Amino acid sequence: MADLRNPAIILHSPQLGENIGAAARVMRNFGLTDLRLVAPRDGWPNPAAETMSAGAFDAGVTVSVHETLQEALEGIAWLAAATARLRGIEKRVGDAAAAARTAHERMGTGQSAIMFGAEKSGLPNDAVAVADYLMTYPVDPEFKSLNLAQAVCVFCAEWGKVTLGPRGDEGDHKAGLGEPAPRDELYRMFEHFEDELEKAGYFFPPEKTPLMKDNLRAALIRADWTQQEVQTFRGAIKALALGRGKARVVRDD
Amino acid sequence: MADLRNPAIILHSPQLGENIGAAARVMRNFGLTDLRLVAPRDGWPNPAAETMSAGAFDAGVTVSVHETLQEALEGIAWLAAATARLRGIEKRVGDAAAAARTAHERMGTGQSAIMFGAEKSGLPNDAVAVADYLMTYPVDPEFKSLNLAQAVCVFCAEWGKVTLGPRGDEGDHKAGLGEPAPRDELYRMFEHFEDELEKAGYFFPPEKTPLMKDNLRAALIRADWTQQEVQTFRGAIKALALGRGKARVVRDD
Repeated sequence: MADLRNPAIILHSPQLGENIGAAARVMRNFGLTDLRLVAPRDGWPNPAAETMSAGAFDAGVTVSVHETLQEALEGIAWLAAATARLRGIEKRVGDAAAAARTAHERMGTGQSAIMFGAEKSGLPNDAVAVADYLMTYPVDPEFKSLNLAQAVCVFCAEWGKVTLGPRGDEGDHKAGLGEPAPRDELYRMFEHFEDELEKAGYFFPPEKTPLMKDNLRAALIRADWTQQEVQTFRGAIKALALGRGKARVVRDD
Repeated sequence: MADLRNPAIILHSPQLGENIGAAARVMRNFGLTDLRLVAPRDGWPNPAAETMSAGAFDAGVTVSVHETLQEALEGIAWLAAATARLRGIEKRVGDAAAAARTAHERMGTGQSAIMFGAEKSGLPNDAVAVADYLMTYPVDPEFKSLNLAQAVCVFCAEWGKVTLGPRGDEGDHKAGLGEPAPRDELYRMFEHFEDELEKAGYFFPPEKTPLMKDNLRAALIRADWTQQEVQTFRGAIKALALGRGKARVVRDD
Protein backbone atom coordinates (compact mmCIF):
# COMPACT_ATOMS: atom_id res chain seq x y z
CA MET A 1 0.00 0.00 0.00
CA ALA A 2 1.72 3.14 -1.16
CA ASP A 3 1.97 5.91 1.43
CA LEU A 4 3.48 8.90 -0.25
CA ARG A 5 3.12 11.30 2.65
CA ASN A 6 6.16 13.40 3.47
CA PRO A 7 7.91 12.70 6.78
CA ALA A 8 6.40 14.01 9.99
CA ILE A 9 8.43 16.13 12.40
CA ILE A 10 7.92 15.14 16.04
CA LEU A 11 8.91 17.56 18.79
CA HIS A 12 9.13 15.65 22.05
CA SER A 13 8.34 17.85 25.09
CA PRO A 14 9.23 21.18 23.44
CA GLN A 15 9.47 24.11 25.82
CA LEU A 16 9.37 27.34 23.82
CA GLY A 17 6.54 28.28 21.51
CA GLU A 18 9.04 30.35 19.53
CA ASN A 19 10.91 27.19 18.59
CA ILE A 20 7.73 25.35 17.63
CA GLY A 21 6.75 28.23 15.37
CA ALA A 22 10.20 28.54 13.83
CA ALA A 23 10.25 24.79 13.23
CA ALA A 24 6.87 24.98 11.50
CA ARG A 25 8.10 27.80 9.29
CA VAL A 26 11.23 25.99 8.13
CA MET A 27 9.26 22.76 7.62
CA ARG A 28 6.95 24.60 5.26
CA ASN A 29 9.91 26.27 3.50
CA PHE A 30 11.13 22.83 2.50
CA GLY A 31 7.75 21.21 1.84
CA LEU A 32 6.98 19.41 5.12
CA THR A 33 3.58 19.83 6.77
CA ASP A 34 2.97 17.15 9.45
CA LEU A 35 4.06 18.53 12.84
CA ARG A 36 3.39 16.38 15.91
CA LEU A 37 3.94 17.66 19.43
CA VAL A 38 4.40 15.35 22.40
CA ALA A 39 3.51 17.04 25.69
CA PRO A 40 4.39 20.65 24.78
CA ARG A 41 5.25 22.43 28.02
CA ASP A 42 3.06 25.46 27.41
CA GLY A 43 0.13 23.62 25.85
CA TRP A 44 -1.42 24.34 22.50
CA PRO A 45 -2.30 26.65 20.78
CA ASN A 46 0.64 28.88 21.61
CA PRO A 47 0.71 32.56 20.54
CA ALA A 48 4.52 32.71 20.41
CA ALA A 49 4.51 29.77 18.01
CA GLU A 50 1.94 31.49 15.85
CA THR A 51 4.07 34.64 15.66
CA MET A 52 7.27 32.82 14.75
CA SER A 53 5.57 30.59 12.18
CA ALA A 54 5.25 33.46 9.66
CA GLY A 55 1.93 31.98 8.54
CA ALA A 56 3.12 28.38 8.13
CA PHE A 57 0.04 27.02 9.93
CA ASP A 58 -2.23 28.79 7.46
CA ALA A 59 -0.01 27.63 4.61
CA GLY A 60 -0.48 23.92 5.24
CA VAL A 61 1.42 22.85 8.37
CA THR A 62 -0.91 20.82 10.56
CA VAL A 63 -0.24 20.38 14.28
CA SER A 64 -1.37 17.43 16.35
CA VAL A 65 -0.79 17.28 20.09
CA HIS A 66 -0.20 13.98 21.90
CA GLU A 67 0.24 13.01 25.52
CA THR A 68 2.74 10.28 24.78
CA LEU A 69 5.27 9.48 22.10
CA GLN A 70 3.51 6.20 21.42
CA GLU A 71 0.35 8.08 20.53
CA ALA A 72 2.30 10.47 18.31
CA LEU A 73 3.81 7.56 16.41
CA GLU A 74 0.48 6.41 14.99
CA GLY A 75 0.99 5.46 11.36
CA ILE A 76 4.76 5.96 11.48
CA ALA A 77 6.71 3.13 9.87
CA TRP A 78 10.24 4.49 10.21
CA LEU A 79 11.51 6.75 12.96
CA ALA A 80 14.76 8.70 13.15
CA ALA A 81 15.86 10.29 16.44
CA ALA A 82 17.97 13.45 16.37
CA THR A 83 20.66 13.12 18.99
CA ALA A 84 24.08 14.56 19.66
CA ARG A 85 25.14 11.52 21.69
CA LEU A 86 25.25 8.02 20.23
CA ARG A 87 24.49 6.54 23.66
CA GLY A 88 25.91 3.11 22.89
CA ILE A 89 22.58 1.96 21.51
CA GLU A 90 22.75 -0.43 18.56
CA LYS A 91 21.18 1.46 15.70
CA ARG A 92 21.96 2.69 12.28
CA VAL A 93 23.52 6.16 12.39
CA GLY A 94 23.68 8.87 9.76
CA ASP A 95 23.67 12.59 9.18
CA ALA A 96 20.71 14.68 8.04
CA ALA A 97 21.40 14.04 4.36
CA ALA A 98 21.44 10.27 4.88
CA ALA A 99 18.26 10.42 6.98
CA ALA A 100 16.52 12.48 4.31
CA ARG A 101 17.57 10.06 1.58
CA THR A 102 16.42 7.09 3.63
CA ALA A 103 13.07 8.71 4.43
CA HIS A 104 12.67 9.50 0.76
CA GLU A 105 13.52 5.98 -0.36
CA ARG A 106 10.97 4.62 2.09
CA MET A 107 8.10 6.69 0.72
CA GLY A 108 5.58 4.17 -0.48
CA THR A 109 6.23 1.78 2.41
CA GLY A 110 4.68 3.95 5.15
CA GLN A 111 5.24 7.39 6.59
CA SER A 112 8.54 8.30 8.23
CA ALA A 113 9.12 10.68 11.12
CA ILE A 114 12.08 12.62 12.48
CA MET A 115 11.97 13.21 16.21
CA PHE A 116 13.67 16.01 18.19
CA GLY A 117 13.98 16.32 21.96
CA ALA A 118 13.44 19.20 24.36
CA GLU A 119 15.60 22.33 24.22
CA LYS A 120 17.69 21.63 27.30
CA SER A 121 17.65 17.89 27.71
CA GLY A 122 17.27 16.37 24.26
CA LEU A 123 15.46 13.08 23.82
CA PRO A 124 14.93 10.73 26.75
CA ASN A 125 16.50 7.30 26.39
CA ASP A 126 13.17 5.52 26.13
CA ALA A 127 12.31 7.62 23.08
CA VAL A 128 15.66 6.95 21.43
CA ALA A 129 15.17 3.23 22.11
CA VAL A 130 12.14 2.98 19.81
CA ALA A 131 13.82 4.78 16.91
CA ASP A 132 15.09 2.91 13.87
CA TYR A 133 17.84 5.39 13.19
CA LEU A 134 20.00 7.92 14.99
CA MET A 135 20.45 11.17 13.12
CA THR A 136 23.46 13.17 14.25
CA TYR A 137 25.07 16.30 12.86
CA PRO A 138 28.76 17.05 12.50
CA VAL A 139 28.99 19.86 15.05
CA ASP A 140 31.92 21.39 16.86
CA PRO A 141 32.41 19.23 19.96
CA GLU A 142 33.19 22.36 21.96
CA PHE A 143 29.81 23.96 21.19
CA LYS A 144 27.43 21.29 20.08
CA SER A 145 24.01 22.32 21.39
CA LEU A 146 21.86 23.45 18.49
CA ASN A 147 18.79 25.55 18.93
CA LEU A 148 15.78 23.22 18.50
CA ALA A 149 14.41 25.01 15.44
CA GLN A 150 17.89 25.07 13.89
CA ALA A 151 18.16 21.31 14.39
CA VAL A 152 14.83 20.91 12.60
CA CYS A 153 16.09 23.29 9.90
CA VAL A 154 19.13 21.14 9.09
CA PHE A 155 16.97 18.10 8.38
CA CYS A 156 14.37 20.09 6.46
CA ALA A 157 17.02 21.63 4.21
CA GLU A 158 18.30 18.15 3.36
CA TRP A 159 14.75 17.05 2.64
CA GLY A 160 14.40 20.03 0.31
CA LYS A 161 17.56 19.00 -1.53
CA VAL A 162 16.20 15.51 -2.08
CA THR A 163 12.73 16.54 -3.16
CA LEU A 164 12.76 20.13 -4.41
CA GLY A 165 16.15 20.81 -5.85
CA PRO A 166 19.35 19.46 -7.26
CA ARG A 167 21.22 16.96 -5.13
CA GLY A 168 24.21 18.37 -3.32
CA ASP A 169 26.61 16.65 -5.67
CA GLU A 170 24.90 18.27 -8.64
CA GLY A 171 24.39 21.54 -6.90
CA ASP A 172 27.05 23.67 -8.54
CA HIS A 173 25.44 24.57 -11.77
CA LYS A 174 25.25 27.68 -13.89
CA ALA A 175 21.54 28.40 -14.07
CA GLY A 176 22.16 32.12 -13.91
CA LEU A 177 24.86 32.22 -16.57
CA GLY A 178 24.29 32.94 -20.22
CA GLU A 179 26.13 31.25 -23.08
CA PRO A 180 29.87 31.26 -22.52
CA ALA A 181 31.75 33.32 -25.07
CA PRO A 182 33.63 31.30 -27.70
CA ARG A 183 37.41 31.58 -27.47
CA ASP A 184 37.68 33.50 -30.72
CA GLU A 185 35.43 36.22 -29.31
CA LEU A 186 37.65 36.36 -26.26
CA TYR A 187 40.71 36.72 -28.49
CA ARG A 188 39.08 39.54 -30.42
CA MET A 189 38.23 41.18 -27.11
CA PHE A 190 41.84 40.86 -25.90
CA GLU A 191 43.16 42.21 -29.16
CA HIS A 192 40.75 45.11 -29.10
CA PHE A 193 41.77 45.89 -25.51
CA GLU A 194 45.49 45.58 -26.21
CA ASP A 195 45.21 47.60 -29.38
CA GLU A 196 43.66 50.49 -27.52
CA LEU A 197 46.16 50.14 -24.68
CA GLU A 198 48.92 50.23 -27.24
CA LYS A 199 47.56 53.43 -28.71
CA ALA A 200 47.34 54.87 -25.22
CA GLY A 201 51.01 54.21 -24.60
CA TYR A 202 50.31 51.65 -21.87
CA PHE A 203 52.86 49.05 -23.00
CA PHE A 204 56.20 50.41 -21.93
CA PRO A 205 59.00 49.51 -22.12
CA PRO A 206 58.50 47.60 -25.42
CA GLU A 207 60.47 44.51 -24.35
CA LYS A 208 58.00 43.95 -21.52
CA THR A 209 54.95 44.15 -23.77
CA PRO A 210 54.46 40.37 -24.25
CA LEU A 211 54.67 39.73 -20.51
CA MET A 212 52.27 42.57 -19.76
CA LYS A 213 49.82 41.23 -22.31
CA ASP A 214 50.04 37.71 -20.92
CA ASN A 215 49.40 38.94 -17.41
CA LEU A 216 46.35 40.89 -18.54
CA ARG A 217 44.98 37.95 -20.48
CA ALA A 218 45.57 35.55 -17.63
CA ALA A 219 43.63 37.77 -15.27
CA LEU A 220 40.77 38.42 -17.65
CA ILE A 221 40.36 34.83 -18.77
CA ARG A 222 39.47 33.71 -15.26
CA ALA A 223 36.20 35.64 -15.43
CA ASP A 224 34.42 32.95 -17.47
CA TRP A 225 33.04 35.54 -19.86
CA THR A 226 29.67 35.18 -21.46
CA GLN A 227 29.01 36.53 -24.92
CA GLN A 228 26.95 39.36 -23.48
CA GLU A 229 29.73 40.30 -21.09
CA VAL A 230 32.27 40.35 -23.92
CA GLN A 231 30.04 42.80 -25.77
CA THR A 232 29.72 44.91 -22.63
CA PHE A 233 33.45 44.95 -22.02
CA ARG A 234 34.23 45.81 -25.62
CA GLY A 235 31.75 48.65 -25.38
CA ALA A 236 33.59 49.89 -22.31
CA ILE A 237 36.96 49.74 -24.10
CA LYS A 238 35.53 51.61 -27.04
CA ALA A 239 34.08 54.28 -24.79
CA LEU A 240 37.39 54.72 -23.01
CA ALA A 241 39.27 54.88 -26.29
CA LEU A 242 36.87 57.43 -27.75
CA GLY A 243 37.01 59.52 -24.62
CA ARG A 244 40.79 59.47 -24.69
CA GLY A 245 40.74 60.31 -28.40
CA LYS A 246 38.45 63.25 -27.74
CA ALA A 247 40.66 64.45 -24.94
CA ARG A 248 43.63 64.27 -27.24
CA VAL A 249 41.77 66.08 -29.98
CA VAL A 250 41.03 68.78 -27.50
CA ARG A 251 44.66 68.94 -26.42
CA ASP A 252 45.82 68.87 -30.05
CA ASP A 253 43.69 71.84 -30.94
CA MET B 1 50.08 33.39 0.88
CA ALA B 2 47.96 30.83 2.63
CA ASP B 3 44.89 32.18 4.40
CA LEU B 4 43.25 29.31 6.22
CA ARG B 5 40.60 31.33 8.01
CA ASN B 6 37.09 29.92 7.88
CA PRO B 7 34.50 31.86 5.90
CA ALA B 8 32.96 34.98 7.39
CA ILE B 9 29.21 35.40 7.66
CA ILE B 10 28.01 38.86 6.67
CA LEU B 11 24.56 40.03 7.71
CA HIS B 12 23.59 43.03 5.60
CA SER B 13 21.24 45.43 7.45
CA PRO B 14 19.83 42.83 9.87
CA GLN B 15 16.79 44.00 11.83
CA LEU B 16 16.27 41.67 14.78
CA GLY B 17 18.88 41.04 17.45
CA GLU B 18 17.32 37.61 17.99
CA ASN B 19 18.30 36.60 14.48
CA ILE B 20 21.84 37.93 14.90
CA GLY B 21 22.22 35.92 18.10
CA ALA B 22 20.72 32.76 16.63
CA ALA B 23 23.00 33.12 13.60
CA ALA B 24 26.03 33.45 15.88
CA ARG B 25 25.00 30.33 17.80
CA VAL B 26 24.61 28.15 14.72
CA MET B 27 27.84 29.54 13.24
CA ARG B 28 29.66 28.40 16.35
CA ASN B 29 27.90 25.01 16.29
CA PHE B 30 29.49 24.33 12.94
CA GLY B 31 32.87 25.94 13.58
CA LEU B 32 32.48 29.45 12.13
CA THR B 33 33.50 32.51 14.15
CA ASP B 34 33.80 35.64 11.95
CA LEU B 35 30.48 37.52 12.01
CA ARG B 36 30.32 40.86 10.24
CA LEU B 37 27.31 43.18 10.50
CA VAL B 38 26.58 45.88 7.97
CA ALA B 39 24.40 48.67 9.41
CA PRO B 40 22.44 46.61 11.97
CA ARG B 41 19.13 48.40 12.51
CA ASP B 42 19.28 48.38 16.31
CA GLY B 43 23.00 49.05 16.65
CA TRP B 44 25.49 46.97 18.54
CA PRO B 45 25.78 45.50 21.16
CA ASN B 46 22.25 44.11 21.23
CA PRO B 47 20.86 42.38 24.34
CA ALA B 48 18.45 40.19 22.35
CA ALA B 49 21.34 38.92 20.26
CA GLU B 50 23.29 38.11 23.39
CA THR B 51 20.37 36.12 24.81
CA MET B 52 19.80 34.08 21.65
CA SER B 53 23.50 33.40 21.11
CA ALA B 54 23.62 30.84 23.95
CA GLY B 55 27.13 32.01 24.75
CA ALA B 56 28.50 31.90 21.21
CA PHE B 57 30.17 35.31 21.59
CA ASP B 58 32.07 34.08 24.64
CA ALA B 59 32.89 30.85 22.81
CA GLY B 60 34.77 32.47 19.96
CA VAL B 61 32.37 34.26 17.63
CA THR B 62 33.70 37.76 16.98
CA VAL B 63 31.43 40.54 15.75
CA SER B 64 32.54 43.51 13.70
CA VAL B 65 30.16 46.30 12.76
CA HIS B 66 30.50 48.22 9.50
CA GLU B 67 28.72 51.18 7.98
CA THR B 68 28.97 49.87 4.44
CA LEU B 69 29.29 46.52 2.73
CA GLN B 70 32.52 47.65 1.11
CA GLU B 71 34.04 48.17 4.54
CA ALA B 72 32.77 44.76 5.70
CA LEU B 73 34.42 43.09 2.71
CA GLU B 74 37.94 43.95 3.83
CA GLY B 75 40.15 40.93 3.26
CA ILE B 76 37.42 38.92 1.54
CA ALA B 77 38.57 37.23 -1.66
CA TRP B 78 35.40 35.31 -2.56
CA LEU B 79 31.85 36.38 -1.79
CA ALA B 80 28.66 34.37 -2.04
CA ALA B 81 25.29 36.10 -1.80
CA ALA B 82 22.30 34.21 -0.40
CA THR B 83 19.30 35.01 -2.51
CA ALA B 84 15.97 33.41 -3.36
CA ARG B 85 15.77 35.20 -6.69
CA LEU B 86 18.35 34.75 -9.43
CA ARG B 87 17.68 38.31 -10.67
CA GLY B 88 19.03 37.73 -14.17
CA ILE B 89 22.53 38.63 -13.05
CA GLU B 90 25.33 36.68 -14.70
CA LYS B 91 26.94 34.74 -11.89
CA ARG B 92 27.70 31.23 -10.86
CA VAL B 93 24.84 29.70 -8.91
CA GLY B 94 24.79 26.84 -6.45
CA ASP B 95 23.14 25.52 -3.34
CA ALA B 96 24.57 25.67 0.19
CA ALA B 97 26.54 22.45 -0.24
CA ALA B 98 28.19 23.71 -3.41
CA ALA B 99 28.96 27.06 -1.79
CA ALA B 100 30.49 25.34 1.23
CA ARG B 101 32.63 23.11 -0.97
CA THR B 102 33.77 26.07 -3.03
CA ALA B 103 34.60 28.12 0.06
CA HIS B 104 36.51 25.15 1.43
CA GLU B 105 38.44 24.60 -1.79
CA ARG B 106 39.40 28.26 -1.80
CA MET B 107 40.92 28.18 1.67
CA GLY B 108 44.52 29.09 1.19
CA THR B 109 43.73 31.66 -1.50
CA GLY B 110 42.08 34.22 0.76
CA GLN B 111 39.10 34.35 3.07
CA SER B 112 35.59 33.73 1.76
CA ALA B 113 32.34 35.24 2.99
CA ILE B 114 28.69 34.35 2.74
CA MET B 115 26.34 37.32 2.80
CA PHE B 116 22.69 37.40 3.86
CA GLY B 117 20.21 40.23 3.45
CA ALA B 118 17.67 41.83 5.78
CA GLU B 119 14.73 39.86 7.14
CA LYS B 120 12.03 41.40 4.98
CA SER B 121 13.79 42.64 1.91
CA GLY B 122 16.79 40.37 1.33
CA LEU B 123 19.93 41.72 -0.27
CA PRO B 124 19.87 44.94 -2.27
CA ASN B 125 20.86 44.62 -5.91
CA ASP B 126 24.07 46.57 -5.46
CA ALA B 127 25.21 44.03 -2.86
CA VAL B 128 24.37 41.07 -5.08
CA ALA B 129 26.25 42.74 -7.94
CA VAL B 130 29.60 42.52 -6.13
CA ALA B 131 29.22 38.83 -5.21
CA ASP B 132 31.10 36.10 -7.05
CA TYR B 133 28.41 33.53 -6.49
CA LEU B 134 24.69 33.30 -5.86
CA MET B 135 23.73 30.78 -3.21
CA THR B 136 20.14 29.65 -3.43
CA TYR B 137 18.24 26.93 -1.57
CA PRO B 138 15.68 24.51 -2.99
CA VAL B 139 12.62 25.86 -1.16
CA ASP B 140 8.93 25.42 -1.79
CA PRO B 141 8.04 28.19 -4.23
CA GLU B 142 4.75 28.69 -2.38
CA PHE B 143 6.50 29.49 0.91
CA LYS B 144 10.05 30.46 0.23
CA SER B 145 10.96 33.11 2.79
CA LEU B 146 13.35 31.60 5.32
CA ASN B 147 13.97 33.10 8.70
CA LEU B 148 17.35 34.87 8.54
CA ALA B 149 19.00 32.68 11.16
CA GLN B 150 17.62 29.55 9.48
CA ALA B 151 19.13 30.69 6.19
CA VAL B 152 22.48 31.08 7.96
CA CYS B 153 21.95 27.65 9.56
CA VAL B 154 21.58 25.88 6.21
CA PHE B 155 24.96 27.14 5.02
CA CYS B 156 26.65 26.50 8.36
CA ALA B 157 25.41 22.89 8.44
CA GLU B 158 26.91 22.32 4.99
CA TRP B 159 30.15 23.86 6.18
CA GLY B 160 30.12 21.44 9.12
CA LYS B 161 29.68 18.51 6.74
CA VAL B 162 32.69 19.58 4.71
CA THR B 163 34.97 20.31 7.65
CA LEU B 164 33.76 18.42 10.72
CA GLY B 165 32.03 15.29 9.55
CA PRO B 166 31.53 12.77 6.81
CA ARG B 167 30.45 14.11 3.46
CA GLY B 168 26.78 13.66 2.69
CA ASP B 169 27.49 10.82 0.31
CA GLU B 170 29.39 8.96 3.02
CA GLY B 171 26.96 9.90 5.73
CA ASP B 172 25.07 6.66 6.14
CA HIS B 173 27.40 4.61 8.21
CA LYS B 174 27.02 2.22 11.09
CA ALA B 175 29.15 3.84 13.76
CA GLY B 176 26.72 2.75 16.46
CA LEU B 177 26.42 -0.86 15.38
CA GLY B 178 28.44 -3.77 16.68
CA GLU B 179 29.66 -6.70 14.62
CA PRO B 180 26.87 -8.21 12.54
CA ALA B 181 25.97 -11.74 13.57
CA PRO B 182 27.16 -14.51 11.20
CA ARG B 183 24.37 -16.33 9.44
CA ASP B 184 24.99 -19.56 11.30
CA GLU B 185 24.35 -17.82 14.59
CA LEU B 186 21.12 -16.45 13.15
CA TYR B 187 20.13 -19.98 12.09
CA ARG B 188 20.84 -21.32 15.56
CA MET B 189 18.77 -18.47 16.99
CA PHE B 190 15.88 -19.26 14.66
CA GLU B 191 16.07 -22.97 15.51
CA HIS B 192 16.19 -22.25 19.20
CA PHE B 193 13.15 -19.97 18.90
CA GLU B 194 11.19 -22.41 16.73
CA ASP B 195 12.09 -25.31 18.97
CA GLU B 196 10.67 -23.57 21.98
CA LEU B 197 7.63 -22.42 20.03
CA GLU B 198 7.11 -26.01 18.93
CA LYS B 199 7.22 -27.19 22.55
CA ALA B 200 4.75 -24.46 23.44
CA GLY B 201 2.27 -25.72 20.87
CA TYR B 202 2.54 -22.55 18.77
CA PHE B 203 2.76 -24.28 15.40
CA PHE B 204 -0.75 -25.38 14.64
CA PRO B 205 -2.09 -26.81 12.42
CA PRO B 206 0.99 -28.90 11.47
CA GLU B 207 0.63 -28.40 7.71
CA LYS B 208 1.02 -24.66 8.18
CA THR B 209 4.21 -24.99 10.23
CA PRO B 210 6.69 -24.35 7.38
CA LEU B 211 4.86 -21.22 6.27
CA MET B 212 4.63 -19.93 9.85
CA LYS B 213 8.36 -20.51 10.32
CA ASP B 214 9.20 -18.76 7.07
CA ASN B 215 7.12 -15.78 8.01
CA LEU B 216 8.80 -15.52 11.40
CA ARG B 217 12.26 -15.81 9.91
CA ALA B 218 11.50 -13.26 7.22
CA ALA B 219 10.39 -10.75 9.83
CA LEU B 220 13.29 -11.38 12.19
CA ILE B 221 15.99 -11.34 9.53
CA ARG B 222 15.21 -7.75 8.65
CA ALA B 223 16.52 -6.61 12.01
CA ASP B 224 20.20 -6.77 10.94
CA TRP B 225 21.13 -8.56 14.15
CA THR B 226 24.43 -8.02 15.84
CA GLN B 227 26.08 -10.85 17.74
CA GLN B 228 25.23 -9.17 21.02
CA GLU B 229 21.59 -8.85 20.03
CA VAL B 230 21.44 -12.52 19.05
CA GLN B 231 22.68 -13.41 22.52
CA THR B 232 20.13 -11.08 24.07
CA PHE B 233 17.28 -12.53 22.05
CA ARG B 234 18.30 -16.09 22.79
CA GLY B 235 18.39 -15.19 26.46
CA ALA B 236 14.84 -13.88 26.14
CA ILE B 237 13.66 -17.09 24.45
CA LYS B 238 15.29 -19.15 27.16
CA ALA B 239 13.66 -17.09 29.88
CA LEU B 240 10.25 -17.42 28.26
CA ALA B 241 10.72 -21.16 27.82
CA LEU B 242 11.82 -21.64 31.40
CA GLY B 243 8.97 -19.50 32.64
CA ARG B 244 6.51 -21.52 30.62
CA GLY B 245 8.10 -24.73 31.84
CA LYS B 246 7.74 -23.60 35.40
CA ALA B 247 4.16 -22.53 34.83
CA ARG B 248 3.43 -25.97 33.36
CA VAL B 249 5.20 -27.65 36.24
CA VAL B 250 2.93 -25.72 38.54
CA ARG B 251 -0.10 -26.71 36.48
CA ASP B 252 1.07 -30.33 36.24
CA ASP B 253 1.44 -30.61 39.98
